[in-house]
Amino acid sequence: MIVLGLDPGLGTTGWGLIRAEGNRLSHLGNGQLKTVTTAPLPDRLADLASQLDSLLAEYAPAAAAVEEIFVNKNPQSTLKLAQARGVVLMCAARRGLQVGEYAPRLVKKAVVGTGTAEKAQVDAMVARLLPGAKIAGPDAADALAVAITHAHHLAAARAGITHGA
Amino acid sequence: MIVLGLDPGLGTTGWGLIRAEGNRLSHLGNGQLKTVTTAPLPDRLADLASQLDSLLAEYAPAAAAVEEIFVNKNPQSTLKLAQARGVVLMCAARRGLQVGEYAPRLVKKAVVGTGTAEKAQVDAMVARLLPGAKIAGPDAADALAVAITHAHHLAAARAGITHGA
Repeated sequence: MIVLGLDPGLGTTGWGLIRAEGNRLSHLGNGQLKTVTTAPLPDRLADLASQLDSLLAEYAPAAAAVEEIFVNKNPQSTLKLAQARGVVLMCAARRGLQVGEYAPRLVKKAVVGTGTAEKAQVDAMVARLLPGAKIAGPDAADALAVAITHAHHLAAARAGITHGA
Repeated sequence: MIVLGLDPGLGTTGWGLIRAEGNRLSHLGNGQLKTVTTAPLPDRLADLASQLDSLLAEYAPAAAAVEEIFVNKNPQSTLKLAQARGVVLMCAARRGLQVGEYAPRLVKKAVVGTGTAEKAQVDAMVARLLPGAKIAGPDAADALAVAITHAHHLAAARAGITHGA
């Protein structure tokens, strides 16, 4: 099963594709979709949708996942992020994908083993779990971490195990 | 010229279509797009996009406009709104529309004449400016108000007048 992890953002949306066979994970690809910062917001969102549609058509993942978001210190950044996230969720759903949503601490727990792990620990574990992956950048690394989390969750669900937070 | 005003929301997105010929406005239609509250967020966003795509295909507006948003007291509501708004902006941009964005006080000023007008005053002026319009609900009224604002703005821009806030 091919699992797509996404780390949405207006300027940069990270994506990471893995293949999950039982507990075996392998890396298929990762990257960062960019939009032109000087373009109007609606055009940037349309550009993001178009790039993501191409990716979904090319790899035809069976499942997708994103991190949950929260309003942070900078409300304007949060609004931009949320608008991009809406487009990302919509593109995935329109292809019939169910989209998993995970709190950041659940992603850390699934990848590193503890919900309070640092970003560097998460990145290091992503690289270890997906040997040979050349990671395009921090957003692609986050996207791969979400894909790994979703793959674990789906495997656990199949095995009848429920994850605690 | 057909102008589409939109009041995005996850549960209800208001829309209002007017024809603007110079300073003459006439009502073409208005309504409220609804999504099923019990459906998963990505599916609701895809449903919203699909309904809006149908509307855009049916009426082929030449311009579109929405209100700006701000983070309000309820961050969770704001996040839902922003995700829906991202989808709405994207759908309009994908059809090649430029999308005007107006602060709520600018909409009030354009419709009522003062940026501090009450919602009831805005609704009453919308009904007066578009005689005969049967208004589907409060979100449709807001959408018509944004359409009127955009029509005024475009007419003023053509006449070489710039609007002050």
